[in-house]
Amino acid sequence: MRIAELSRTSGVSIATIKYYIREGLLPSGLLTNSNQARYTEDHVHRLRLIRALMDLGGLTISKIRSVVTALEDPDGRADPRTWTADGPFAGPLAPLTADPQTVATVRSLIERQGWNAPVDGPEFAMVVELLDTLCELGQERFADRLDDYAEAAERAAAIDEEVLGSCDGSRSRAESLVVGTVLGDSLLSALRRLARAERSTAPMPAFAGEAGS
Amino acid sequence: MRIAELSRTSGVSIATIKYYIREGLLPSGLLTNSNQARYTEDHVHRLRLIRALMDLGGLTISKIRSVVTALEDPDGRADPRTWTADGPFAGPLAPLTADPQTVATVRSLIERQGWNAPVDGPEFAMVVELLDTLCELGQERFADRLDDYAEAAERAAAIDEEVLGSCDGSRSRAESLVVGTVLGDSLLSALRRLARAERSTAPMPAFAGEAGS
Repeated sequence: MRIAELSRTSGVSIATIKYYIREGLLPSGLLTNSNQARYTEDHVHRLRLIRALMDLGGLTISKIRSVVTALEDPDGRADPRTWTADGPFAGPLAPLTADPQTVATVRSLIERQGWNAPVDGPEFAMVVELLDTLCELGQERFADRLDDYAEAAERAAAIDEEVLGSCDGSRSRAESLVVGTVLGDSLLSALRRLARAERSTAPMPAFAGEAGS
Repeated sequence: MRIAELSRTSGVSIATIKYYIREGLLPSGLLTNSNQARYTEDHVHRLRLIRALMDLGGLTISKIRSVVTALEDPDGRADPRTWTADGPFAGPLAPLTADPQTVATVRSLIERQGWNAPVDGPEFAMVVELLDTLCELGQERFADRLDDYAEAAERAAAIDEEVLGSCDGSRSRAESLVVGTVLGDSLLSALRRLARAERSTAPMPAFAGEAGS
């Protein structure tokens, strides 16, 4: 298909499609002459993937570039176990600033749960940083429930792994991992808010927007 | 304290502090003469809150502005049950594009779980949109496990509510709700990745970064 049809099918404007190609998020079309290119169903799928990671997963252009580069790498760097550290989920913060007590708490959580997670990984650093920050903000009561939150997270991880285990082919497994992880975070977050709506002492009142305030 | 000390204590540069004041994220200091202002511990705390929501929660400046405005509102619009709809957690997408089948699925999930969540709320629209998008991307196997993910989310929501129930004073409860919700999302997401690290068939290999690739 030509770019106009790709735009209609995907709902993404032609200018934005060209921007994604320039930014390395979307492969170029196949040039049929000096100023026309052909696009395929793979382009439609990639555009959907980009928009989902951006609009629903909240990833930036630069993180999406890391994701699609990893997915395209024929040397297996898309293997989820090898591309988390320098990939799109790399932790934002240096572990050097962490409270040693908190590091010990998370280490012992991992032992108790029987997890095999590395203590030098970005997920570990992120958990430590979040606990330290909760305490710094005077919200240590959330940090105190670490074990309970870990149980809820483990439950979600078990479902993830069952779904991923049923994938065949490393290419599709890698894409499933990305989509399931990023959109799965958003899904859990929305479900957690949805579940909490019933836990108010009173039924939900009209929303502020509807009440005209 | 003066702005230089506020900057040292909080680790936020003077230029950034001034930017947050201009953007309405941080109240001005108390002017002591025409070009000097005094700041308090409340300013230190607010700076920590802003950085946590931004660096660990991934919120934008504009979402943080909605959060702190809601927290400061003396008319109780900081009541979490009234400011979600037009507040920082408003869903990004119009429900008009949703598949009616998916809407019915989420409605029936809410009934089965005995949740009291409104079907016109942003959380509902977000869950519908995420399920539709997972299917569109060929990842319906994640969407098929909606009930299981809902159980995990409900577990996390129950802990949230226990922690929030122990807060006294609506002001501190509102801040706890914001911090617990936003940083709690990041914590669950990091714990879910941490839990999954042990579920690989083999022990985690060296990270790509360490292997020098």
